[in-house]
Amino acid sequence: MDFSLELIKSIARPSPTKIVLLVIDGLGGLSDPETGKTELEAANTPNLDKLAAKGICGLIDTVSPGITPGSAPAHLALFGYNPISFSVGRGVMEAVGVDFDLQPGDVVARGNFCTLDEMGLVTDRRAGRISTENCTELCQLLDGLVVEEVRLFVYPVREYRFVVVFRGQGLAPDISDSDPQQLGVAPKSVTALSPEAGKMAGIANQFIARAKMTLAEHYPANMVLLRGFSKQPYFPTMGEVYKLKPAAIASYPMYRGLAKLLGMEVLGTGTTTEDEFATLKRNFANHDFFFLHIKGTDSAGEDGDFDRKVRIIEQVDNKLAELIGMKPDVIVVTGDHSTPALLREHSWHPVPILLYSKWCRPDKVSEFSEAACLLGGLGRFPATQVMPLAMANALKLNKFGA
Amino acid sequence: MDFSLELIKSIARPSPTKIVLLVIDGLGGLSDPETGKTELEAANTPNLDKLAAKGICGLIDTVSPGITPGSAPAHLALFGYNPISFSVGRGVMEAVGVDFDLQPGDVVARGNFCTLDEMGLVTDRRAGRISTENCTELCQLLDGLVVEEVRLFVYPVREYRFVVVFRGQGLAPDISDSDPQQLGVAPKSVTALSPEAGKMAGIANQFIARAKMTLAEHYPANMVLLRGFSKQPYFPTMGEVYKLKPAAIASYPMYRGLAKLLGMEVLGTGTTTEDEFATLKRNFANHDFFFLHIKGTDSAGEDGDFDRKVRIIEQVDNKLAELIGMKPDVIVVTGDHSTPALLREHSWHPVPILLYSKWCRPDKVSEFSEAACLLGGLGRFPATQVMPLAMANALKLNKFGA
Repeated sequence: MDFSLELIKSIARPSPTKIVLLVIDGLGGLSDPETGKTELEAANTPNLDKLAAKGICGLIDTVSPGITPGSAPAHLALFGYNPISFSVGRGVMEAVGVDFDLQPGDVVARGNFCTLDEMGLVTDRRAGRISTENCTELCQLLDGLVVEEVRLFVYPVREYRFVVVFRGQGLAPDISDSDPQQLGVAPKSVTALSPEAGKMAGIANQFIARAKMTLAEHYPANMVLLRGFSKQPYFPTMGEVYKLKPAAIASYPMYRGLAKLLGMEVLGTGTTTEDEFATLKRNFANHDFFFLHIKGTDSAGEDGDFDRKVRIIEQVDNKLAELIGMKPDVIVVTGDHSTPALLREHSWHPVPILLYSKWCRPDKVSEFSEAACLLGGLGRFPATQVMPLAMANALKLNKFGA
Repeated sequence: MDFSLELIKSIARPSPTKIVLLVIDGLGGLSDPETGKTELEAANTPNLDKLAAKGICGLIDTVSPGITPGSAPAHLALFGYNPISFSVGRGVMEAVGVDFDLQPGDVVARGNFCTLDEMGLVTDRRAGRISTENCTELCQLLDGLVVEEVRLFVYPVREYRFVVVFRGQGLAPDISDSDPQQLGVAPKSVTALSPEAGKMAGIANQFIARAKMTLAEHYPANMVLLRGFSKQPYFPTMGEVYKLKPAAIASYPMYRGLAKLLGMEVLGTGTTTEDEFATLKRNFANHDFFFLHIKGTDSAGEDGDFDRKVRIIEQVDNKLAELIGMKPDVIVVTGDHSTPALLREHSWHPVPILLYSKWCRPDKVSEFSEAACLLGGLGRFPATQVMPLAMANALKLNKFGA
């Protein structure tokens, strides 16, 4: 039984209590075959363990058992938004990821610079992985076009990747990709997938034709491939749903962008864990919900660097004492998914979670680890229930029904 | 994944086995900071512990994690009815709570006697909390009106509260409240929220106008405010769904009313725990399902009286020996929600449950408590699965599928 956002909205009440949601990206791991310990178990984490002892622990599945989530659905789930019904298109994710200021009605596509041979067939879908600098120069050549009163923004992402944003009236995103996703064939013509999308398909094809002309002399980046046309979805904001005044502290643009989509105020912060906790401290009085995101653990996991992931967990544990000192009413520590260093990528394994509040009904768990959380009082549960639990523990939910 | 009532109905079979569902209202608690024990853990409960040792234990969420349920949705869930899709309106709950004999098609509203000043503005939404006797007299003045062939019943609840029931043809309950929920403004005119509700809105406004005239000289109770217009919802009865002949033993009217809505036979009983167990014994031969409701634990929790809650649990434990002596095939002991004395109100914490039957596959739990149930064989699960489990253990469900 899943409680919908509408229902939560009907019982949420504003209150002065404060919630901190600390997301250690890719937190869950797998055991090192030699030591038998996961990254979290290998790390020396006295503060997390103390908080686990005073709080209540468990394991979350961000999407569902066996499903490895991307960062966007995983975070949506943590914020209480069903990651299957609230999806974010590829184009929008890329734009959000580079902090592009999307407006309602904008259609966005993910773009690749690519290489065509003299027959017009794709020989490299990534244009030899051109540099980000080169990408930026080429984007400037294509940026600012106006086609049938639709304004186009072309914005570099990294290496051969860019986004293109179409801003104008009556644009529908349900059009096909131009990217054929294979070599030796010509880029595809974009086609409308619904009657309303005819205008959008036409404009996309005109952009592609102009890009081909503009890039003709820029081998290997002599063409573009577009995919994932999408529109900024409508999300009820966390303010509307939870009656919170939420803030996000994240050094990576994707997480800031997603937080903005959900109506969080994105606080300026530096790039280190220290910077992020300092930002929390500076702004602690001004909000009643804080999403604090630690990226380094996920990156270390993806690099297969077990020891670096351990070290970053220890750094976070070290800063946790400061967080506890601020005395938020509810502290939740978890991850958005597992990124075991052994697997070098996101995985489907459930993620340890600990929740501390005055009202949490503590369990016997006294160590924050995959194995210990398995016996925790929260049990194993879907990540979409984290926010209702945090809200309940902050006494921010009215009773449901008479 | 939730098994719907339709599916249960398709596999339920009548049989002579008997199920007793003992609901100790507000059973779950929080630990006393000095002893570290919850009410249930502090209570001396040899019979519950013996049953836990022979049976299988777990924890239930009545609505979903983090959600604090009212009594009505919590009990609906225990009886297997999804408390979100099967909701009971405020007016209906009040009528059910005073044992008013609702008929299909009746529209019910919750009413307050209130005070208007000479300008017609609300100065007290509760008319100075007039006495129940006064309320009863005023209800008699308003009762029995007939407007456009719709018969009105005005029935006292307690102090300034009453219900008004509209009985007639073609009444739709989707009309707005007259209660402005604030002071210094006039009562609102009732308006139809759908085209079908025009007649009902008109009749409600006529009733309010007549009530104003009738009450003019009854300051401070010189007006009425109505809200929560609702109709008795359609519930498939427990007889239809489970092929049971169910009976309810409850000393509080709300629970008797809800049981009646679900087609249980409500057995006359006294007000004490002893009375209720005696009623069970007297009627044991005549039914195959008994819902036995203990109210005192919840009241003690709401009063913040930890020790009284402990004592009532001990009283129930004491009577449990008699229940075991009747040899029902399945005994389920649980609560509808937690009411920790420390919190002095219903809470979201999961509720201990024990199930005993010859066929239950016992676990290692030998103590009925929040902490022990966490490690029980039933795990943590939604309350809507309690009835299917009880039915299975009574061998009252056919195999699903070939």
